[in-house]
Amino acid sequence: MVVTVQEVLERLTVSIGKISNTVDALKYGDPNMKVKGMAISFMPTYRVIRQAISAGANFLITHEGLFYSHTDHTEMMKKDPVYQEKIRLIRESGIAIYRFHDGWHRYQPDGIMVGLIRALGWETHISKYLPTAAIIVIPRMTAKEIAKYAKEKLHAPFVRITGDLSAPCTRIGLLVGHRGGGSLSIPLFEQEHLDAIIYGEGPEWETPEYVRDAVHQGRRKALIVLGHAESEEPGMRYLAEWLGLQFPDVPVHFIQETPLFQVV
Amino acid sequence: MVVTVQEVLERLTVSIGKISNTVDALKYGDPNMKVKGMAISFMPTYRVIRQAISAGANFLITHEGLFYSHTDHTEMMKKDPVYQEKIRLIRESGIAIYRFHDGWHRYQPDGIMVGLIRALGWETHISKYLPTAAIIVIPRMTAKEIAKYAKEKLHAPFVRITGDLSAPCTRIGLLVGHRGGGSLSIPLFEQEHLDAIIYGEGPEWETPEYVRDAVHQGRRKALIVLGHAESEEPGMRYLAEWLGLQFPDVPVHFIQETPLFQVV
Repeated sequence: MVVTVQEVLERLTVSIGKISNTVDALKYGDPNMKVKGMAISFMPTYRVIRQAISAGANFLITHEGLFYSHTDHTEMMKKDPVYQEKIRLIRESGIAIYRFHDGWHRYQPDGIMVGLIRALGWETHISKYLPTAAIIVIPRMTAKEIAKYAKEKLHAPFVRITGDLSAPCTRIGLLVGHRGGGSLSIPLFEQEHLDAIIYGEGPEWETPEYVRDAVHQGRRKALIVLGHAESEEPGMRYLAEWLGLQFPDVPVHFIQETPLFQVV
Repeated sequence: MVVTVQEVLERLTVSIGKISNTVDALKYGDPNMKVKGMAISFMPTYRVIRQAISAGANFLITHEGLFYSHTDHTEMMKKDPVYQEKIRLIRESGIAIYRFHDGWHRYQPDGIMVGLIRALGWETHISKYLPTAAIIVIPRMTAKEIAKYAKEKLHAPFVRITGDLSAPCTRIGLLVGHRGGGSLSIPLFEQEHLDAIIYGEGPEWETPEYVRDAVHQGRRKALIVLGHAESEEPGMRYLAEWLGLQFPDVPVHFIQETPLFQVV
């Protein structure tokens, strides 16, 4: 059965309604193009685009922006050779690229969050979903044990941890991507009686410093920072599975990147 | 000689003129109070405030905010026990607290940048100061060697690195604190012909992903992420030295925090 880019976009967005001020858009390509193969990634890196093309995909669906900013503001990049070579690869290949960020987060529950919970093996430990977090209740482990567990489950080269590493934890707040900022994370400690928060990325002077002060006041709290990609890539793997079920006649390739950072 | 809080504030700001929309302010305390001792820190953590009081200081000068946000927006914190206990410590001790963030960055050259360059031992390698960066030209080292060198010099438990770890580097862009975002960092690679950038903190989907794409296009670039505190605390140590020279009759204590994160 022939499927067009437009049909895939409609299937992705039919259940979520219209989102105003969204970053989601068909960035390149013709909506009427027939989809020979789909590639799904967290970050549309230069390597991911090449791998998608090599795999025979002519449609890439990706979570983050192409040009190193959330809004893909490219004005300052126009003369940059890295930008130019990436544009050239996209244009010469004719690959269609759709950014599916806000829409997938808008699913009930958030597709990115579901993917992370699955990757962590915590599907049976979900207490509740909040708009930008999930509350997980697990059998007691120390914060450091949880950090090691998450690192292993996510195949991360490292995770960062602050606070009381030996704090006994059962109630955990989980926040994907860049939701680690203080306004989203800090109130959860009190409201949800959390022992620990696990998030993707956030400003270092916000939630981590709150946790540090809490510990020095004798409160046993901890924070585990996974990395942005580590926290969101599993949700795009989950999207690839979902799309495979939606379009069984179209090859769907999930393209994983290597870890962004190493520690020295 | 008796020195008041107000006299210290005047000495700190006399050379920089008025800054509009600044976060710098006397957050607590009486400007007319006599200064028995000054404490200087990067982050005014609960522990730092207690150590300042223990050291006999009644005036703390600090770079970052007290309450886990750049603008010290405390409305959501009012009922938070960590916030309340920190407020109580400050009020009961009567310690004066001045945030000196924008002002110290406004010095020519930026006091925080000077502190970092000194800590890295690169005073003789400064090529030029830009408004939000310094260009450093060093004898050739690989990116990984530079990362190890910086980690050792800054007594950091780890630094993060991405890009081409074996890239030969001589021209380095150095950006303190949260200046690692793409708009400040990415253009420097081209404009300043940089091999590597070293910054404190920045969004993971911006500069790191630019460097990753550059490397996959065959460009030998690297990025070293020190951590926000690791990049800015030396600048507050430098401020403590500077204040000691300005006010030789007042005890000045630099209070260092322990590293915020560990890796697992």
